[in-house]
Amino acid sequence: MSEQITDLIEEVVHAQDTDDNVLASVLASQDAADIALLLESLPVDERQHTWEQIPQSRRLEVLVEMRVDARETLIADMSREQWLTLLADIDAEDLLELSYNLPSRIIDLALSLMDEKQSEYFADAAQFDDDETGRWINHDMLVLPQNAKVRDAMRLLRREIAPHTDTLFLVNRAGQFAEAVRITEVLRTPDHTPLVDISEDAFSVLQAKEDCVDAAMLLQKSGFSALPVVDEQQKLLGRLDITAASELVNEYYEGQLMASAGMDEEEDLFSPVAKSARKRAIWLGINLLTAFLASAFIGLFEATLQQVVALAVLMPVVASMGGIAGSQTLTLIIRGLALGQVSKANLQALTRKEVGVGAVNGVIWAVVIGAVASFWFGDPRLGLVIGLAILANIICAALSGVLIPVLLEKFDIDPALSGSVILTTVTDIVGFVAFLGLGTMLLL
Amino acid sequence: MSEQITDLIEEVVHAQDTDDNVLASVLASQDAADIALLLESLPVDERQHTWEQIPQSRRLEVLVEMRVDARETLIADMSREQWLTLLADIDAEDLLELSYNLPSRIIDLALSLMDEKQSEYFADAAQFDDDETGRWINHDMLVLPQNAKVRDAMRLLRREIAPHTDTLFLVNRAGQFAEAVRITEVLRTPDHTPLVDISEDAFSVLQAKEDCVDAAMLLQKSGFSALPVVDEQQKLLGRLDITAASELVNEYYEGQLMASAGMDEEEDLFSPVAKSARKRAIWLGINLLTAFLASAFIGLFEATLQQVVALAVLMPVVASMGGIAGSQTLTLIIRGLALGQVSKANLQALTRKEVGVGAVNGVIWAVVIGAVASFWFGDPRLGLVIGLAILANIICAALSGVLIPVLLEKFDIDPALSGSVILTTVTDIVGFVAFLGLGTMLLL
Repeated sequence: MSEQITDLIEEVVHAQDTDDNVLASVLASQDAADIALLLESLPVDERQHTWEQIPQSRRLEVLVEMRVDARETLIADMSREQWLTLLADIDAEDLLELSYNLPSRIIDLALSLMDEKQSEYFADAAQFDDDETGRWINHDMLVLPQNAKVRDAMRLLRREIAPHTDTLFLVNRAGQFAEAVRITEVLRTPDHTPLVDISEDAFSVLQAKEDCVDAAMLLQKSGFSALPVVDEQQKLLGRLDITAASELVNEYYEGQLMASAGMDEEEDLFSPVAKSARKRAIWLGINLLTAFLASAFIGLFEATLQQVVALAVLMPVVASMGGIAGSQTLTLIIRGLALGQVSKANLQALTRKEVGVGAVNGVIWAVVIGAVASFWFGDPRLGLVIGLAILANIICAALSGVLIPVLLEKFDIDPALSGSVILTTVTDIVGFVAFLGLGTMLLL
Repeated sequence: MSEQITDLIEEVVHAQDTDDNVLASVLASQDAADIALLLESLPVDERQHTWEQIPQSRRLEVLVEMRVDARETLIADMSREQWLTLLADIDAEDLLELSYNLPSRIIDLALSLMDEKQSEYFADAAQFDDDETGRWINHDMLVLPQNAKVRDAMRLLRREIAPHTDTLFLVNRAGQFAEAVRITEVLRTPDHTPLVDISEDAFSVLQAKEDCVDAAMLLQKSGFSALPVVDEQQKLLGRLDITAASELVNEYYEGQLMASAGMDEEEDLFSPVAKSARKRAIWLGINLLTAFLASAFIGLFEATLQQVVALAVLMPVVASMGGIAGSQTLTLIIRGLALGQVSKANLQALTRKEVGVGAVNGVIWAVVIGAVASFWFGDPRLGLVIGLAILANIICAALSGVLIPVLLEKFDIDPALSGSVILTTVTDIVGFVAFLGLGTMLLL
């Protein structure tokens, strides 16, 4: 698939230079998700030009598939008339997705164009936060009363049915979710059988207030294509389907990957330079503070550095080994926390194991680096100093790698975002202080 | 979900101390995936003890759900009798998953216990590499000849049907895939209609040799729960279903996250210290080489450092700002490569934009850091030196952040694994040389 998008980019970039008809016909054969990926891959001017070649009737679905930041570049300057055309057939789900980019007057415009049911769905979903399951539901489900029979189900099944419908939902009179019945089970059961007789035994129900990524991962493992979503009174609100779930999970992972560099998953490949620079400057600023902090600690040892310049030469080795060892532990623990595998009950055993790994690698690399340093500068005492500093820093890195993400999670701060900055600060300072402190004691 | 696992760990750790019956009853109510997550979360002794409380009949499904490294700790010492019990009902898919851990004599034993069809399926799938779609297929599909009618389909639909079956596959006489028909479409169509009349227009077919993560992402976006997989002659081999696809995609993302710290997604939270230390030592060693390389460049400026010790104090600031700015660009480009959004056609525009962002942030932070350094050490020339070094390093980091992953991808090296080591090496060396070189020229 990635190959196909790459080819498509080349084709479009070439078509730009030649003929808009070629461009329009290339686009016509692509699905909305691929056109969205394509638009994100184009520099802003070419993106705008390509966007204009997309038929009006397909623009909405393409826009919905795009990332927030990239989408912004296309709709920033749209006129009210253009909005009216674009929003003519919008439904609640699409408006929810677009609402991140839209000023409230455009949202109101869209709501005024919707039928009552859709705007009610929108209002319901908009009550929930981004990270709650209730925001991501749809209403394309087959629902029957709890006392319905197979024949009622068969009647329902002759209608047009939305993708990812593998079960029927049964509700009681209060509208609360009661049971689920597999469609394939309905097909092999006599007409007069009550549906409750063939309902599923182990069937998960999602809570609207539940974290949407947890819910989505549960759905992915469930073996079903959609699961019902209920409110606190067990009332059936809608369903989460596997397409929406996969998007949520993939966005979560992308967010984790981007967070490690202080960015979010909406970051646009071709956002305007000024905007992109502004967004990234904050992260650079935070890191600058921690770098100055490390410098301040080095500054304490100016006199030592002046006398033993070899210490200045070797400083990066001590900092780097601590940072790498710590980030290995940190990455393992962040994954464990995300999977729910790290808890009070195993934290102690985990810390013991990681510190054990740190001690083993600390000793090995202390010896190696100590030997290299002794040989390089012809001074075994320098080898001893760097060896001890490496050992101390790697063990401390392992300890920090476990404790920092656990503490951050406790205070509801995303460890994927802040974990590595804090860890590096710790390993830099511990490394420099251990190395230069030992140097002051043993070399002067 | 993550909450539930965390609770479960606590329960099991407490039950360990009290009563095995409690433990067994806690386990009985959990599904295989959750027990697998639980076992991975336990230190090796408790893991072994808990494993023994799982009924024989469920052990295989739990083992299949576990990560390779964690699984290894449980099966390392199993006797031939234990293997015979465990493998009694194994099918091709499960054996494929376990085969990473099994010596060939146990694989042969398992094959001898299978029926002919299953061992044929195993042999077929084992021909494909881990990253090829053909390895991940199953055979639970509904297949009819191309000229079948709705009534034939209805007959087939009265059988027991595997989860995630939303379409019937039609094949021609040569066994080549021809068309797909939605089950829900079959239900609303008269008995005598040929199935080809109601087949899907836009339906993707996966190639067995195709990259399995690409195929899995395509399935996730397709709106179907499973897609057919064919060989080079278009012969229908099996299908990829959405549960398998989600696992492949999630493992891919986990792999990306772990790769940034030089680990793989199979890394066990509680692997034995010696094994874990050995696996991680390699990464530390590679990083050590790059750190020594940076030190060697610093060593060229020993004389300067001796005279201007402030340079030694500020070195980490220059290195850190370059590293952070570079990793932002790197992360964005790695994602773009993974999504297929970075290609020859837009590489130049992308480089221009990233270098632009680097120049803006370079100038801003050069001024800030230059001012701080001038004030701190009371020497405006030092401020000028560090400012220029920061500017050079951030711009060079942006350039490297684009070019390094693109080059690595070209040579088929995973940029998520090696990108950041190489980048940091470049930004360290450029930063130190620019800073100390300018210092030598302007401060001595």
